Amino acid sequence: MTGTTLDDYTDRYARRVRGMTASEIRALFAVASRPEVVSLAGGAPYIAALPLDAVGEMLGQLGAEHGVTTLQYGIGQGTLELRERICEVMALSGIDASCGASPDDVVVTVGGQQALDLVARLFLDPGDVVLAEGPTYVGALGVFQAAQAQVVHVPMDDDGLIPEALEAAIADLARAGRRVKFLYTIPTYQNPAGVTLTEERRERVLDICERAGLLVVEDDPYGQLGFEGEAPAPLRARRRDGVFYLSTFSKTFAPGLRVGWILAPHAVRDKLVIASEAQILCPSAYAQAAVATYLGTMPWREQLKVYREIYRERRDALLDALADLMPEGTTWTRPGGGLFVWATLPDGLDSKAMMPRAVAARVAYVPGTGFYADGSGTGNMRLNFSFPPPDRIREGVRRLAGVMEQELATRRVFGAVRGDGPRRGRAGSDAPGPALA
Amino acid sequence: MTGTTLDDYTDRYARRVRGMTASEIRALFAVASRPEVVSLAGGAPYIAALPLDAVGEMLGQLGAEHGVTTLQYGIGQGTLELRERICEVMALSGIDASCGASPDDVVVTVGGQQALDLVARLFLDPGDVVLAEGPTYVGALGVFQAAQAQVVHVPMDDDGLIPEALEAAIADLARAGRRVKFLYTIPTYQNPAGVTLTEERRERVLDICERAGLLVVEDDPYGQLGFEGEAPAPLRARRRDGVFYLSTFSKTFAPGLRVGWILAPHAVRDKLVIASEAQILCPSAYAQAAVATYLGTMPWREQLKVYREIYRERRDALLDALADLMPEGTTWTRPGGGLFVWATLPDGLDSKAMMPRAVAARVAYVPGTGFYADGSGTGNMRLNFSFPPPDRIREGVRRLAGVMEQELATRRVFGAVRGDGPRRGRAGSDAPGPALA
Repeated sequence: MTGTTLDDYTDRYARRVRGMTASEIRALFAVASRPEVVSLAGGAPYIAALPLDAVGEMLGQLGAEHGVTTLQYGIGQGTLELRERICEVMALSGIDASCGASPDDVVVTVGGQQALDLVARLFLDPGDVVLAEGPTYVGALGVFQAAQAQVVHVPMDDDGLIPEALEAAIADLARAGRRVKFLYTIPTYQNPAGVTLTEERRERVLDICERAGLLVVEDDPYGQLGFEGEAPAPLRARRRDGVFYLSTFSKTFAPGLRVGWILAPHAVRDKLVIASEAQILCPSAYAQAAVATYLGTMPWREQLKVYREIYRERRDALLDALADLMPEGTTWTRPGGGLFVWATLPDGLDSKAMMPRAVAARVAYVPGTGFYADGSGTGNMRLNFSFPPPDRIREGVRRLAGVMEQELATRRVFGAVRGDGPRRGRAGSDAPGPALA
Repeated sequence: MTGTTLDDYTDRYARRVRGMTASEIRALFAVASRPEVVSLAGGAPYIAALPLDAVGEMLGQLGAEHGVTTLQYGIGQGTLELRERICEVMALSGIDASCGASPDDVVVTVGGQQALDLVARLFLDPGDVVLAEGPTYVGALGVFQAAQAQVVHVPMDDDGLIPEALEAAIADLARAGRRVKFLYTIPTYQNPAGVTLTEERRERVLDICERAGLLVVEDDPYGQLGFEGEAPAPLRARRRDGVFYLSTFSKTFAPGLRVGWILAPHAVRDKLVIASEAQILCPSAYAQAAVATYLGTMPWREQLKVYREIYRERRDALLDALADLMPEGTTWTRPGGGLFVWATLPDGLDSKAMMPRAVAARVAYVPGTGFYADGSGTGNMRLNFSFPPPDRIREGVRRLAGVMEQELATRRVFGAVRGDGPRRGRAGSDAPGPALA
C-alpha cells in the first residue's frame, strides 16, 4: 500500500462505495487505519489497555513449558479447562448451573463469527427466513447471506427490539407461508445500534418466540462492557430451552486469539462439534490455553473494569462532541455499554455517498447500509468509540460535522448531491426512527 | 474421564464401532491418548522435537512487544508478512513466481481443514461429485459430506492415483450425466496410503483433468517431509491454471496454532476471502505472527531436517516391526515420506470389528473404513509413525499382531467372528489391491 496516496483511495472509494459489501467495509477499515484518518469505523477493543508484559510472559510460558500440548492438535469441542472457565464467565451474567449451563454443552469456536456460522450451517436451508434486529451485525448478515437465507429485519427503539413488531413480522411471514428458522438478536449494547433490550421486553420476546416455536440465537459479545450498572440478565439465563447463547473473548480479552463459544442445547451439541470439525478440525490449543490461563491466573475481572472505565470516558467524549458539533437534524443513540453509537443524519444526507468525502476529510465511519440486508440505512452511520482516545474522537466528529455541513450546503444550492435521487431502499420507512435516536 | 476404566471404553467402543463416524474416530483418538495405549491412530507431529524454549521466547515477545497488533483483529486474507513467507516456503517445492505464485493470491486459513472447507463452499452444490483417491483424508470426506457432495474414489497403486482409473471414472460419470466439480488429491506421501504420485503420472493426471475441464484441488501437507530425496514437484508447480494448492504448518511447525493456506487462482481469490470472513472473520493475528516470525527468525529449514530424520527412523521401526511380527497375508505400503503406513489385513479380518479388542490389548489404529465414503476399507488400517518413539512403535505392532493372530485363530475355530458376514462395502473390489501393498 506504500506509494498510494489517500486521494487514490478516495477515488477508488468514490467508484465503489455505492455498491459497498461486507468485504468492502473491511477494505474501508484498511484505509481508515491510516494514521492520518480518525477512524470511528472499527469495532476493535483498546488492546493497549491490557497488561501486555504479563500477558506476554504468560504466552511465552505456554510455549516453553507446555508446548507439547499447546502447540499440538486438540479436540473439536475445545478443552475442558477452557469450557469450565467459560462457565465461570457466563455465571457472572446469571447463566449458571441453575439454568442448566454446563461445560459439557459449550463448544469453543474461532471467535463469535464461527459460532454464528455453525448455527447457520446447522439450521439454515436456502430460502429460509431469519428474523434479526434492523440494523444488525454486519458479520451476521454475511453468514445468513452465505447460507442463502433471507433476513427480515425487526425494528428497534431506545428499549431495543420492539415486541409488537416481532409479533407482526412472525404473523406476516406465517401468512406468507415462509419458514422462519430463528430470531438472531444482540439484546445487550447492540451492534450497531447501541441500545439494550429492557428487562420486561426480554420476557415478552422470549414468550413470543416460545409461542411461535422459534429458536433464539442470542449474541452477547458486549454484555460485560456496561457503563451504568449491570445489564439485564441474558435471554439464556431466563430460558433453559430454545436459546443458543454465543459470545467471545474478542471484546473482553483479545480478538487476535480468535476464541469464542456457543452454549448450545444439549441435543444439538454433538452436531455443532461435528460441523466445526468439518470446518476447522479443532480450535487452536494454544489460543485456548492462553484464554484459560488468562482467566485462571490473571485479574480479568479487574481488567473488565479497566475496559469499562476507558470506554465510558470515550463514549462520553463522543456523545459530548456530537451534541456540540453535529448539524441540526442529526440524532443518535446513547449506549449504556458496548462500543457503538448509531447516528441518524439530517434528512437528505446519504452516509454511503458521503463516505469518500469523509475519508478525504480524514474521518471514517461505517455507512448504515452495511447493517441491513434490504438496502435500508442510507441515512445512518455507526460510530465506534472503543478504539480512538477522547481527543481523537472529538477531532473526528469535528471533521465529520464539517463534511456534513458541506453536504447540506451543496444540497441547498444544487439540490441533491452527486447522483442522489430519492433515498434508495426503504430507509425512510424501515430505518430506526426518532424513537431510536 | 477420571474414574472410567479402559474396559468401560472398550465396551462403549464395542457398541459403537460398527457405525463409526469421523467424530467417533476423534473420540477414539481420545481413548488412544491414554498413556497405557500405544497409539498408531493419530496424525500428530512430534512437537517435542521443536526447540520449545526458543519458540516460547518468541511467542512471549509477540505478546509483550507486539501485542497491540498481534492480539488485535486482522484482515480476512491474512497478513502480507505471512503471505510473503508462505511464498518462500512454496518456492522450496518449485511453486514460485515463474508459475505465477504471488502473496496476493494466498489466503491464510485455520489449518488445512478450513482451506478445504472454503474450496468446498465455493464450488460444491448438493449432489455434485468429487473425485478423490481411495482411500483419502478423513477430514476431506467430512467436508464433502457436509456439502452434500458425493465422493467417487479413484484407486491407487504404489505409484499413486492410477491415471487410467481416473479417465475411466470421468468417462463413467459423464455418461451418467453427473456433474463432477473437481479432483481432490494428496499426491505426495498420501494420507492415509503413504504412496506418492510419480513424476510421469503427475503430468498425465494434469492432462486428463485439463481435457475434462476439471479443477484440481491439491492438498500438500506432507510434501516437505520426505525421507528419500526430494519429492516430485507439486502439481501447482507444473500448471498455473486450474490447480488450487492447499497446505498447512501443522506438520512442519505446530498444529496448535492452526495456520494453513490456499494458493488460489487469482479470479477466485476474493471469493475465498469473503467466504472466510463469513466463517471466521479473520485468521488469528497472533498465530500468523507466530508462524511468520518462526519462518523469519528461526532455523526452520534445519527443523524440517530434524523432523525428517526422526520420522525416517520411526518409519523404519514400523516397517521392520511389521516385517518381523505381522501374520502371514498382511501387506503394507512403504512410504517415502509423511506420517502413515497403510496396511491390508489377511483375508477375513475386519479392522473395524477388531478395534475394541485392539484397544483392550492397548494398541490403537484407524480402521480403513474411515478413509472411504462408500464403506470400503474394512480390510485395511492406517498406522501412524510420527508420534510414538521407535520402541513404542515396535511394542504396538507386537500387540496388534497378537490381536490379529487371535482373530485368525478364532476364525479358524468358529468361522466368522462376531457378526462378520461377507465383507461389507466393496472392500474386496475397490480397496487398494496388491499393487498398493
